[in-house]
Amino acid sequence: MMECRDLFQTVRAKRPLIHCITGYVTANDVANMILAAGASPVMADGVQEVEEITAHSQALVLNLGTLRETAVESMVLAGKTAVRLGHPVILDPVGAGGSAFRRQTALRMIKEISCAVIRGNGSELKALVYGESDGRGVDAEGRDCLTEENQKQMEQMVTKLSQDTGAIVVMTGHQDLISDGKQIYRIRNGHPMMAQITGSGCMLDGVIGALAAAPESELPLFWRVAYGVAAMGICGEQAYEKTIQTDGGTGSFRMYLIDAMSNMEDEQVRKGVRLEF
Amino acid sequence: MMECRDLFQTVRAKRPLIHCITGYVTANDVANMILAAGASPVMADGVQEVEEITAHSQALVLNLGTLRETAVESMVLAGKTAVRLGHPVILDPVGAGGSAFRRQTALRMIKEISCAVIRGNGSELKALVYGESDGRGVDAEGRDCLTEENQKQMEQMVTKLSQDTGAIVVMTGHQDLISDGKQIYRIRNGHPMMAQITGSGCMLDGVIGALAAAPESELPLFWRVAYGVAAMGICGEQAYEKTIQTDGGTGSFRMYLIDAMSNMEDEQVRKGVRLEF
Amino acid sequence: MMECRDLFQTVRAKRPLIHCITGYVTANDVANMILAAGASPVMADGVQEVEEITAHSQALVLNLGTLRETAVESMVLAGKTAVRLGHPVILDPVGAGGSAFRRQTALRMIKEISCAVIRGNGSELKALVYGESDGRGVDAEGRDCLTEENQKQMEQMVTKLSQDTGAIVVMTGHQDLISDGKQIYRIRNGHPMMAQITGSGCMLDGVIGALAAAPESELPLFWRVAYGVAAMGICGEQAYEKTIQTDGGTGSFRMYLIDAMSNMEDEQVRKGVRLEF
Repeated sequence: MMECRDLFQTVRAKRPLIHCITGYVTANDVANMILAAGASPVMADGVQEVEEITAHSQALVLNLGTLRETAVESMVLAGKTAVRLGHPVILDPVGAGGSAFRRQTALRMIKEISCAVIRGNGSELKALVYGESDGRGVDAEGRDCLTEENQKQMEQMVTKLSQDTGAIVVMTGHQDLISDGKQIYRIRNGHPMMAQITGSGCMLDGVIGALAAAPESELPLFWRVAYGVAAMGICGEQAYEKTIQTDGGTGSFRMYLIDAMSNMEDEQVRKGVRLEF
Repeated sequence: MMECRDLFQTVRAKRPLIHCITGYVTANDVANMILAAGASPVMADGVQEVEEITAHSQALVLNLGTLRETAVESMVLAGKTAVRLGHPVILDPVGAGGSAFRRQTALRMIKEISCAVIRGNGSELKALVYGESDGRGVDAEGRDCLTEENQKQMEQMVTKLSQDTGAIVVMTGHQDLISDGKQIYRIRNGHPMMAQITGSGCMLDGVIGALAAAPESELPLFWRVAYGVAAMGICGEQAYEKTIQTDGGTGSFRMYLIDAMSNMEDEQVRKGVRLEF
Repeated sequence: MMECRDLFQTVRAKRPLIHCITGYVTANDVANMILAAGASPVMADGVQEVEEITAHSQALVLNLGTLRETAVESMVLAGKTAVRLGHPVILDPVGAGGSAFRRQTALRMIKEISCAVIRGNGSELKALVYGESDGRGVDAEGRDCLTEENQKQMEQMVTKLSQDTGAIVVMTGHQDLISDGKQIYRIRNGHPMMAQITGSGCMLDGVIGALAAAPESELPLFWRVAYGVAAMGICGEQAYEKTIQTDGGTGSFRMYLIDAMSNMEDEQVRKGVRLEF
C-alpha cells in the first residue's frame, strides 16, 4: 500500500502550518511532535485571532482537553473558517466519555464543522455514537477496549460514526481502527506504554494534521491518516526498545517517542507498518 | 512500619481516577507522575464539568498554581462534591506565601472544603497559619527552611495547621514533616535537586492523591501519605544517581524522577524509607 | 569582552525572582530553564495578583504565546508596576507576525510599558517595525531569515526598533543580532535544532530575565543580554553534540538544552562565545 510515497519527506519540505486549539496539559508535547513530524505548530485559542490564524494555516486540530467555555467559541470560529477555506479539520473529543459538557461540545463541533478526521479511544467514540458515558473520561477501560470479542461491534461503531459524519474515524487502542465509512483498516503497530503517558493520542492528532496538510500529496486522505497512525505506532515500538535499553521508565519513553518521530524516515514506515484490511 | 503493605501494587491493580485542578505550568508533569504511580489522571477545570468529573473520580487534587478567578469557583464546586461523596481532597496552596489572592483562596478552600491532606513548603504553610507572606512565592527560602534551629517551631506549626483543619499536613523541604495533629513523622529521603526543577511538589500531590484513593487499602491515610512522601523522596535519590551517571543536569533529573516512579516497587519503598517518629 | 565577570555565579548566589506571564505551551520549559540558570521563576497571570507578585520579583518576562484578552490586562498591570519599581521588563512578541491581535498587543505593551529588552525572530520584529504580517506566525521563514543579502537591512531594522523603543533588541535566528540603538553585536552560537523544538526563544527570554535581574552586577544590561544569548547558543551546541552521541532526536535535544544550562559555568561562556561587533 505505502510503497511509493514519501509523505514525511513532503511534509518536511513544505513545513505546513498546523493551527492547534488544544488543552494545556499536552500542548507542549503536541507542538514538539508536530515539529518532529516536519510541520510547524501555531498554538492559539484567543477568540480575537483564531480566524486569522486558521486562515494562514494549512490544517486545524481541535482538542477538547481541559475544555472551557471560551475555547468552545474559538473552536467554532476557527473550524468554520477552516472548512470555508478547504483546510482539513482534525477533531479529538478528549474525555467525551467523561462529562456531558465534553460530549455535547464534541457533538456540536461535529454538527457545525465538517471534520475531515475524528480520532478518539473506544470510550470517547462510544459516547459520540451512543451518547453513553462510562465515566472513565480520558482512557478506554474494560468493556470499551478493543478485544477479539467486541471487534465486530467496534468496527461497526467506527464505520457508523464515519458514515454519519463524513469524517475519517480513527479509534486508537491496543489495535487502531480507521474507517472512511466504506473500508476499514486495522493497524497493529504501537506499544502499551503509549497508554502510560499522557498525550499519545493528542500527539497523534498533530501528526495527522501535519500529514493531512501535506500540500502536494495526491495520496487520498484515508491513506495519509493510516500512514500517520502507523508511523506513530512505530515510534511507540522504537521508543519502547530504547526505554528498555537505557533502563528507563515512562518519562524516558515520552522523550524517545518524540525522538523517534523526529528521526522517522518514510522507508521505516513502509517497512514497519502492520496493517490489515 | 511499612513492612506488610503493597500500596503501589494496589493502586496499579485498581487504577483509580484522580481529578486534578492544577496550574498549567506543571499539569503535564502531574499527569505523567500520576500515570507513573499507577493511577489515571483527569485534568479538568471547566465550571460546567468539574462536579461530574469529580463524581466519577476517586480523589481530587486542588493546586493553586497559576491561579485565576474562574478556577476558584471550579475548585469550590469540585471540592464540595468530593467531600459529599467521601473522596479525599488534597490541597496544595502553591504560592500562598507570595500573594494575598493565593493565601485568601487557600484559606477559603480550607474553610469551605474539608481537606484530607494539605501539602506545601515552609513559606506556604506559614502563610496559612500566621497570615505572613515572605514574598518569595513558590519556594521556601531562608528563615522558612527547616533547620535544626527552627525544627521545633516548624513542627509546632505543622501540628497546629493539622489540628485547626483536620487535614494531614505535609511540609516538604530538606526534610519532610507529616502530621495528623497528634503524631509527627520526619522523612529524610529526597535530594536537593528536587528544588531545582519546577513541579516536584505538584507531582507529589498527584502521588498522594493516587495513594489516598487506593480503594481497598486498609492502611490509615496518615501512613499512605507518608508512604507517598517517602516514595517520592526515593525517586529523587534514584533520579539524582542516574543524572550523575549520565552526565546530565536538571532536565534529565526531571525525566528520571518520572522514570523512577514508573519503575517503583513497594519493596524499594520499604527498604529505602528514612523515617523518624 | 566577557573576561572578568561571572554572571551565572552571581545569579546563582542571589537567586532573583523572575515573574513570568507566559503562554501555556512553553511555561514549563521556561520555568525549568530559569531554575537551570540559577534564578527562581514565579509563573502568575491572575489579574488579582500580578502587581503584588511583580513587586516581590526582580524582573518581569512578558510573553505573548497563546495570548488571551484577560492576560493582556494582567501584562499591562504587571508591566507598569515593574517599570515604576525599576525592574527590567523583557517582552517577547510571540507570533506578532501571525495575527493583528498579537501585533497590536505587542505594540500596546511597547507604548505603555518601557521595556528593557525586546526579543523576537525576524518575522516578529518586522511586524512591530513595519506593521507587516507574513502569516507564518511563530517562526521566521524565507525572506524574514537573516541571510548575507538582507543582513544590512535586518541590522537597520533591529537598530531602528531599539531607537524607537529605548529597549535593547534581540533578533534570534541563524545568527543573533543585539542592538542598543547605537552598537550592534552578532552572535554566531547556537544550532539549527533549536528551531526544531518549541520554546527555545521563550526559554532564552527567561535566561535574559535572570541575567537582567542579577542584583549586584555592574555589567551594563547590553552586555548581560549578549551574555545570555551567547550562553543559550552554547547550550544549543552542547545539546546537539549530546543528542548525536546518544542517537537521540529533538525530544532529547530539548532535555539536553536544559541540562546544559543547569551545568553552565561562566568559564564556558567566555571560551565558547562567538561574537562580532
